Amino acid sequence: MDKAALAVFLRADFAQVADDFVVERADEAGVTLRLVAGERHLRPGGTVSGPALFALADVAMYLAILARVGPVALAVTTNCSIDFMRKPEAGRDLLAEARVLKLGRVLAVGDVLVFSQGRPEPVARAGLTYSLPPR
Amino acid sequence: MDKAALAVFLRADFAQVADDFVVERADEAGVTLRLVAGERHLRPGGTVSGPALFALADVAMYLAILARVGPVALAVTTNCSIDFMRKPEAGRDLLAEARVLKLGRVLAVGDVLVFSQGRPEPVARAGLTYSLPPR
Amino acid sequence: MDKAALAVFLRADFAQVADDFVVERADEAGVTLRLVAGERHLRPGGTVSGPALFALADVAMYLAILARVGPVALAVTTNCSIDFMRKPEAGRDLLAEARVLKLGRVLAVGDVLVFSQGRPEPVARAGLTYSLPPR
Amino acid sequence: MDKAALAVFLRADFAQVADDFVVERADEAGVTLRLVAGERHLRPGGTVSGPALFALADVAMYLAILARVGPVALAVTTNCSIDFMRKPEAGRDLLAEARVLKLGRVLAVGDVLVFSQGRPEPVARAGLTYSLPPR
Repeated sequence: MDKAALAVFLRADFAQVADDFVVERADEAGVTLRLVAGERHLRPGGTVSGPALFALADVAMYLAILARVGPVALAVTTNCSIDFMRKPEAGRDLLAEARVLKLGRVLAVGDVLVFSQGRPEPVARAGLTYSLPPR
Repeated sequence: MDKAALAVFLRADFAQVADDFVVERADEAGVTLRLVAGERHLRPGGTVSGPALFALADVAMYLAILARVGPVALAVTTNCSIDFMRKPEAGRDLLAEARVLKLGRVLAVGDVLVFSQGRPEPVARAGLTYSLPPR
Repeated sequence: MDKAALAVFLRADFAQVADDFVVERADEAGVTLRLVAGERHLRPGGTVSGPALFALADVAMYLAILARVGPVALAVTTNCSIDFMRKPEAGRDLLAEARVLKLGRVLAVGDVLVFSQGRPEPVARAGLTYSLPPR
Repeated sequence: MDKAALAVFLRADFAQVADDFVVERADEAGVTLRLVAGERHLRPGGTVSGPALFALADVAMYLAILARVGPVALAVTTNCSIDFMRKPEAGRDLLAEARVLKLGRVLAVGDVLVFSQGRPEPVARAGLTYSLPPR
């Protein structure tokens, strides 16, 4: 699936949050997903909350898997280990770079780095595992 | 801090999400926190979403630390490793049981089990680390 | 499998390390495994090394799964998230308490607490996922 | 610290395991560490064991931190989340690529990819956190 196909899938499958995200890049190497930082993602002080960062990493990895296997609505996250390393900067969107490291028969594994747009140092790092439906 | 004090703190410090949560229990052993499952926590099919489960575990551990150290608004999550084990049941609140395993000078570590109310088998399990401000 | 059966399995399947471990307890609730702390597990200062703690948690969970499903030599660890919370005390064996939280068709998930013998506060905490062979 | 300095430090601080490892590369971007696969790292079937992979990732990250901050003998691992993705190939050394993602006042965070030498697909992936002594 390419950028446009993923955007359509996101809108169909994650209707409640689709407006939060923009697929910036999608290829064999992975996916870049933007979180359009809005009021509802913020903690006091104006930084993006932990759950919003988690959601960004989770959706980015999901789309990176779909980019490789095609539309598989039933893939589910089984594990996520996330390190919160720096406070996201207030007033900036976040960009998640997701890559698939393993695409097995029943499990897919990958990792994600999250950046405040325009900043070189990562805000968060996550490793995620998805369980894949029988194909 | 006891149950009532934690509820006040939650409302002051997490104003945007305080309505989602009810502190059911708070003592030296830990905290039980309820997620009042609402429309905005759901995924298609009526189950609670991964980010909502993450938020529940994260807030439950935060409150369990506060119950031990008192109001420390600057404690921040540095790591969370979460296993999603079963689909939460549609139409049921979720209960998170959080316990503090270590309360050090700079780090606090604990774990959380999440259950669909009235069900014996856990929906999710998380280990979390918080960085504590200098005291 | 009970305590005696697990001990036999351990010796057959983990011959190189079987002398390090003693199965102290095995039932539906889980397994208690002892690491007989020897010279080769130690770091300077006399504390048990991180890899030895990891091995203890990993083998304890493996045996806890076997106690439930019977001898399944091909179960493999797919994820381990481990928190090292306190230095193990020099000159004491370590005890790992492992419990299975989910036993699915393709994945088993559980957690482990590790204690220095006779001490109430945990040395380490781990969550582990195993991939199970088709049955 | 450069490659030679790290090798000296490794021998002094990890005497029991120093023979297992060779520092292949060390610069600002990170460290490449080789595990010289020997009999004692193997599981039945000839593949490197989980604890040996954990030890490789752990030491590689430790050296990557030292490469940045200089000899700090008291840095300790506080968390490791490791995904085992493929069986290491029998008869091949393993190479760990470690990079530091955050070097804070009290915590350092990084990640590691492990490869069977000469193979493009990673065997394991780990995220690690170290607690740093006061400087």
